[in-house]
Amino acid sequence: MGNEKIHMKYLQLGGIGGRGGVVRFFMLAHGLEYEEELYGMTDGSWTERKESMFKTGENPAGTLPLLEVDGKQVTQHVAAMRYIARVRDLTTGDAYGEFVQDAFADQYQLVRDDWVRHSFGSEEDKKKLKEEVVKRHFKVLDGLITKWQTEKVYLSLGKNGMPLWGDAAAFGIVYDHIKTGAITKEEVDANYPKLAAIYSNFSEIPSVSQWISEKSG
Amino acid sequence: MGNEKIHMKYLQLGGIGGRGGVVRFFMLAHGLEYEEELYGMTDGSWTERKESMFKTGENPAGTLPLLEVDGKQVTQHVAAMRYIARVRDLTTGDAYGEFVQDAFADQYQLVRDDWVRHSFGSEEDKKKLKEEVVKRHFKVLDGLITKWQTEKVYLSLGKNGMPLWGDAAAFGIVYDHIKTGAITKEEVDANYPKLAAIYSNFSEIPSVSQWISEKSG
Repeated sequence: MGNEKIHMKYLQLGGIGGRGGVVRFFMLAHGLEYEEELYGMTDGSWTERKESMFKTGENPAGTLPLLEVDGKQVTQHVAAMRYIARVRDLTTGDAYGEFVQDAFADQYQLVRDDWVRHSFGSEEDKKKLKEEVVKRHFKVLDGLITKWQTEKVYLSLGKNGMPLWGDAAAFGIVYDHIKTGAITKEEVDANYPKLAAIYSNFSEIPSVSQWISEKSG
Repeated sequence: MGNEKIHMKYLQLGGIGGRGGVVRFFMLAHGLEYEEELYGMTDGSWTERKESMFKTGENPAGTLPLLEVDGKQVTQHVAAMRYIARVRDLTTGDAYGEFVQDAFADQYQLVRDDWVRHSFGSEEDKKKLKEEVVKRHFKVLDGLITKWQTEKVYLSLGKNGMPLWGDAAAFGIVYDHIKTGAITKEEVDANYPKLAAIYSNFSEIPSVSQWISEKSG
């Protein structure tokens, strides 16, 4: 169980979280030390980096974030968070407590894919995201939290009392939808009470709220 | 750690595997006792069942498979396999060995989604799957196995020496692409050697080959 600073390569997305943002929020919540290497999406540095990832075999999927955790290269953001939780002994330590994180994160990945597809798509796509897609997805996510949660607010808690990868994913996806105008915080509060509770509690974790205020300021 | 027979509710898909098929192959490989409750997709029984899943809250996502494992209802097929592996003590027991299963399974989910979208779509979709989509995806999956595998053939092995959820997903997705004519076994052998090795080794597990021969016979 190492304790070296985690290194994360990701995209320069400003105040938007993205997949790497979920990992960042997770690391912030757990007070893990990390450093970031961020690539610009418009200045060509990401295109160049992506090419070299394929060539060197650093990541055959050509996706970021790419993390280095105690000497191991890990990608696929949900699997990466679970790995960090495992090697830093942050997990719940019980099979069902981990299942609820895993299962929620699996459903979340569909929502993330749709958010990416629509948010960076045509005006028509953005309209569809706002009017239909986000409502359908958030209803399902809220229902799954209701069914699975083992704690008052979160799905389950790690040994240190902090939320884990599924809860970080829940926070991150609500954050990105609000940030890009696909939904308002008021709509989340009014219609998706379980998601709203995770969003609000997670955003009040001091390290998280500090990151957010620096990015919005 | 219970030992009751696992109950799986899934769709009647004949010889195609689908998401539930991956769980079934996983259970077969590990010699787990299970029983199935399969719903017809054309006789209205699935539509009816889906409605009741929403209403009763049995699965707010409205998806199958839905498993009952020692009294717990578990859904989201990858999370479900990991849960079964955990409660039946089948995992590798080391963080990186589990990471490679998790990370591969995350990438696989994208491939699964695209397979579903195209296989059950228009003729144009089926053509696109065969000519372009499967090649792109299988190249990435093969590259990820090269990067991540910790064993000669499989990504990693459980304590019982059998392959785990990521390897079951690899087998299942190749199986479904071949079964639906999106690719041939010969093409897999010729172009994706790592996937081919997992496919061939997994299909030779006696319980798995028996299931396949009964379905093809």
